[in-house]
Amino acid sequence: MQYELLDKINTPQDLRLLTVPQLNTLASEIREFITHSVSCTGGHLASNLGAVDLTIAMHYVFDFTKDKLIWDVGHQCYTHKILTGRRELFSKLRQKDGISGFPSPAESEYDQFSVGHAGTSIPTALGLALASEKLKTSEKIVAFVGDASIVNGSNFEALNNLGLIKRQLLVVLNDNSMAIDVSQGAIARFLAKVRLSHKYEDLRNTTNRILEHLPVVGKRVEGALESFKQTLRMAITPSRLFESLNIPYFGPVDGHDIGSLIELFKAMGHLSSPAVLHVYTKKGKGYTPAKEDPTKFHSTGPFKINGEIEIESTGKKSFTDVFSDSIVKLAKKDDRVIAITAAMPDGTGLVNFRNNFESRYYDVGIAESVAVDIAAGQAKMGLKPFVCIYSTFLQRGFDQIFQEVSLQNLPVVFCIDRAGLVGADGPTHHGLMDIGFLRMMPNMVLVSPANGIELEKALRFALDCSSPVAIRYPKEEVKDEFYRDVFSQPYELGKSVTVRNGSSNVVIVAYGSMIFEALKAANILEADNIDVTVINARFAKPLDDKIISLINADNIIVTVEDHYTACGFGAAVLEAAVKAGANTEKVKILGIEDIYVSVDKREKQLETMKIDAKSIVSTVKNLHSIDKFLQI
Amino acid sequence: MQYELLDKINTPQDLRLLTVPQLNTLASEIREFITHSVSCTGGHLASNLGAVDLTIAMHYVFDFTKDKLIWDVGHQCYTHKILTGRRELFSKLRQKDGISGFPSPAESEYDQFSVGHAGTSIPTALGLALASEKLKTSEKIVAFVGDASIVNGSNFEALNNLGLIKRQLLVVLNDNSMAIDVSQGAIARFLAKVRLSHKYEDLRNTTNRILEHLPVVGKRVEGALESFKQTLRMAITPSRLFESLNIPYFGPVDGHDIGSLIELFKAMGHLSSPAVLHVYTKKGKGYTPAKEDPTKFHSTGPFKINGEIEIESTGKKSFTDVFSDSIVKLAKKDDRVIAITAAMPDGTGLVNFRNNFESRYYDVGIAESVAVDIAAGQAKMGLKPFVCIYSTFLQRGFDQIFQEVSLQNLPVVFCIDRAGLVGADGPTHHGLMDIGFLRMMPNMVLVSPANGIELEKALRFALDCSSPVAIRYPKEEVKDEFYRDVFSQPYELGKSVTVRNGSSNVVIVAYGSMIFEALKAANILEADNIDVTVINARFAKPLDDKIISLINADNIIVTVEDHYTACGFGAAVLEAAVKAGANTEKVKILGIEDIYVSVDKREKQLETMKIDAKSIVSTVKNLHSIDKFLQI
Repeated sequence: MQYELLDKINTPQDLRLLTVPQLNTLASEIREFITHSVSCTGGHLASNLGAVDLTIAMHYVFDFTKDKLIWDVGHQCYTHKILTGRRELFSKLRQKDGISGFPSPAESEYDQFSVGHAGTSIPTALGLALASEKLKTSEKIVAFVGDASIVNGSNFEALNNLGLIKRQLLVVLNDNSMAIDVSQGAIARFLAKVRLSHKYEDLRNTTNRILEHLPVVGKRVEGALESFKQTLRMAITPSRLFESLNIPYFGPVDGHDIGSLIELFKAMGHLSSPAVLHVYTKKGKGYTPAKEDPTKFHSTGPFKINGEIEIESTGKKSFTDVFSDSIVKLAKKDDRVIAITAAMPDGTGLVNFRNNFESRYYDVGIAESVAVDIAAGQAKMGLKPFVCIYSTFLQRGFDQIFQEVSLQNLPVVFCIDRAGLVGADGPTHHGLMDIGFLRMMPNMVLVSPANGIELEKALRFALDCSSPVAIRYPKEEVKDEFYRDVFSQPYELGKSVTVRNGSSNVVIVAYGSMIFEALKAANILEADNIDVTVINARFAKPLDDKIISLINADNIIVTVEDHYTACGFGAAVLEAAVKAGANTEKVKILGIEDIYVSVDKREKQLETMKIDAKSIVSTVKNLHSIDKFLQI
Repeated sequence: MQYELLDKINTPQDLRLLTVPQLNTLASEIREFITHSVSCTGGHLASNLGAVDLTIAMHYVFDFTKDKLIWDVGHQCYTHKILTGRRELFSKLRQKDGISGFPSPAESEYDQFSVGHAGTSIPTALGLALASEKLKTSEKIVAFVGDASIVNGSNFEALNNLGLIKRQLLVVLNDNSMAIDVSQGAIARFLAKVRLSHKYEDLRNTTNRILEHLPVVGKRVEGALESFKQTLRMAITPSRLFESLNIPYFGPVDGHDIGSLIELFKAMGHLSSPAVLHVYTKKGKGYTPAKEDPTKFHSTGPFKINGEIEIESTGKKSFTDVFSDSIVKLAKKDDRVIAITAAMPDGTGLVNFRNNFESRYYDVGIAESVAVDIAAGQAKMGLKPFVCIYSTFLQRGFDQIFQEVSLQNLPVVFCIDRAGLVGADGPTHHGLMDIGFLRMMPNMVLVSPANGIELEKALRFALDCSSPVAIRYPKEEVKDEFYRDVFSQPYELGKSVTVRNGSSNVVIVAYGSMIFEALKAANILEADNIDVTVINARFAKPLDDKIISLINADNIIVTVEDHYTACGFGAAVLEAAVKAGANTEKVKILGIEDIYVSVDKREKQLETMKIDAKSIVSTVKNLHSIDKFLQI
């Protein structure tokens, strides 16, 4: 496709050659480009369409080769990437050798931090600002944060500490009145109320009033801020939070009025203290289907330009789908069952639960720590909370799981979706540390079901457990069609299941859905006359003694897991084996080595990281030939 | 000592037989009891003296066999313990088979959660309240939180989510205008400002106004709250934060006026929504030395009743002391050096640094996540931030270390004090997971110096590193008098140091200060004609290949560490050994097994957990005799 203006924009400098009407046209072209591009590749749509004008205005005013732009979460950075020389790469968005869907310093000097988690923009921007004070540099610093992220505890802690600096730091609060799902919590409700009581003309008035009173561009007016703040204190502004934190607050203003935004940014760049600019934007602006259903178009696969999203009808269910059904079934049987999400009802498969059991469903917003603590309180009172959080985001609850759950030995169930490699979302989103950080904690039970049949059984097992249980499962379709009898065996604490009995001394022990790579490997090896045993470990803690006794019996053992080899399932096997005095010479651990795994399809990542069937085969063959050689 | 009233108080019920003047006398007796008791055993003093009257009033009004009292951090719970039948046990405060210095459900039905970390009271209380709604129970729920803890991100996230409940939940904000050191951040400054502009009579007026307007005790007045809130909105109150969060706020009131507090608690227990009661108290009240220097008497060893604290003049320095000196030396040489603490300048040894380099020192309050992120921002700009946080509290920064430091590969230095077993503070404070959670992250370098000489060298090494470095050290005196030459060898990435060369095939590999237990063991073993080699590993990541090659060479290897065996240093050795195809039959890992280690002296804990010289000796002997037997 050809674009009159966009085709000429190669760096943010080119923006400055355009008039405001031309910038508006450019914004439309960018919206068209993003919509078309994401319809082909998939990606984040609604939030990006909302942030186009704001991003243009920021790049028009600031020079982010020197100035610093810090994104929160970062999935709304597409316009930023388009304007900073990465337009051509959008055909490979979120693909191998393409560009990331999140900010990435490896791609561009315009990106400061690789991010993907919420709550980090204000604290890291504060760090940059403190350093700049020390180094006496004069760059402008802008933290760009959505209404869903600003309520995260880390951002709050940073807001509370903004007084550490005596220099410019602009927090742009991009308020599209919606988090990934619906914004949660008191502040979100307050923002929503203000929004409803607010006419469009008010926004324009506010902008004008700010501009009237702000120091003229280029003229530095120290101390003028105090009197200025008095002028702006309007009853309709949601400024109390910021006032109580002693942070100058401006707004709300129209986030789609590029001309005004440029004036505002120019003026606010000259403030000599931190400040918040509160901006209203519309998710999905410029593309009606996304505007009408921003949740559907938050993160999407390829779709038709009329708004139809083609669901690839493989007819297969994902782990998330199975979880979604199973948790509803459990809740029907047992009214102690509670479900908790941190702003991810869709992603974690809780929409169905919410619709069925609204009063037993809690969304705390992007606040994983609190999700864990609420569950601890509920469990203490005898309820059965299921905390549903992606593996990577559960890292935010590490200390809470330690102190409030494991130390108290409370029966909270952690449903850890997106465990392992996650494909297109890349390094910030892989869940490669949960086995390690959870198994260090006394009282914890760690489970990974192999497929949908097992996930349902694992949930049922967890419900009956008197200890905390962590159930991890990947972003994958379930394979429920093989070995149904074996997988249907009920869960028993610390008991593995032998899926395939082989006649050789080779045993493959898999944790979770990796069992299917192991079984595939077994078939290949059989053709080579190596008849292997395949064990589905089910538990990483407590480990089945049987696995250790197999090591003692001088077998070749290969463990496979979708986790870092450091501290993972295989490491747990080694620790137990050495404790038992076993010889581990013929043991190999397959898992992710000590690197950050870049964007690719999940299947490809398994292959590259050598935890697929092929790698299992070659590992086994290698061990087997050494073993045979030694036995001669 | 004999107390007229206190001696008759065995349960909180006994309180209700007393008049308010008697309760005041009781409060004085409790202050005397606590001061005397802590002067003998050591413990937290100033904060406990401040909370006496509040605690009496709470127990007078509420029945905490049914009602729930949730402490934040919890070191201010002494009066609570005294009133709930644990007075006699104060002679064994923070000692084996005595009572914990923190709340402990194992001790009493009056304690809900074992705590010790900040920021958990409001979220867990919210969990209890949600469960109570579900279970239709009617207990009152009280969260007791200090001004230093309420600003923690987790408490903030919970405040933002209090709208989830439609029932009573009272947050008692115990404002003694001082965190462990000086309260940090905008909210703390705001509270301090209000306090200064506030006369004592105002407090009494406020109390009277609240009582006038609050529903009469016992009479449930639904809906009355709104009009009531209007009445109470006074310019002098620091209520904006709570208003913006839509939480009814009452106060500030006098936290030493037991009579009024009883009336307030009675009235507020009947509210049908969450509310905050803001209470002023004086740290150290009733004991002049503690009132005048609350930091000195925050957490103290035994002292003379005239206020003199006898420092046991062993003349020996702790790791913290050495750190304190070394970081100042580094900062003098290199002006990129920055130091960051999360409300622990004393504990982490930064007071000296603060006095020398005020502008390069940052205290962010109890907000570990932000401490990490600020450092990431500073490192990004070329500075060298040293983040000084106890091991157990660094757990709060896990996700930030992952995304903002390790993924970006920024040279932040983590100075991890109180790593390993910490003695009297018990299970919430041990630092037994840092090796595990940090070594999973790519780019991280993990170091543990053996003594003071090495700590200084490790810090210098870290300063020159281009990756993030984590330096862990225990709550221990340094042993700098032995093998000075060996320990003085400069640090080299991933290189261990052989401290003792033995003639047998036994090698003891120690991480950190455990080297001295290993050396002690070596001496004992020598007497038994087993001449062992002792290696000081220095690095847990990257590991020295030499250690692995020793395993390959068929030696007996015993690793020793002050960390859980799961995921620890020894586990790292095993993982590397198995990768190299080594036989680990003759390897043993000594570390902490899968339990929570209860309160005792650190030396005793090392013994009980079998990571002391004696256990090393018996482990070696055991392996050695098997080995000899097999060689016959």
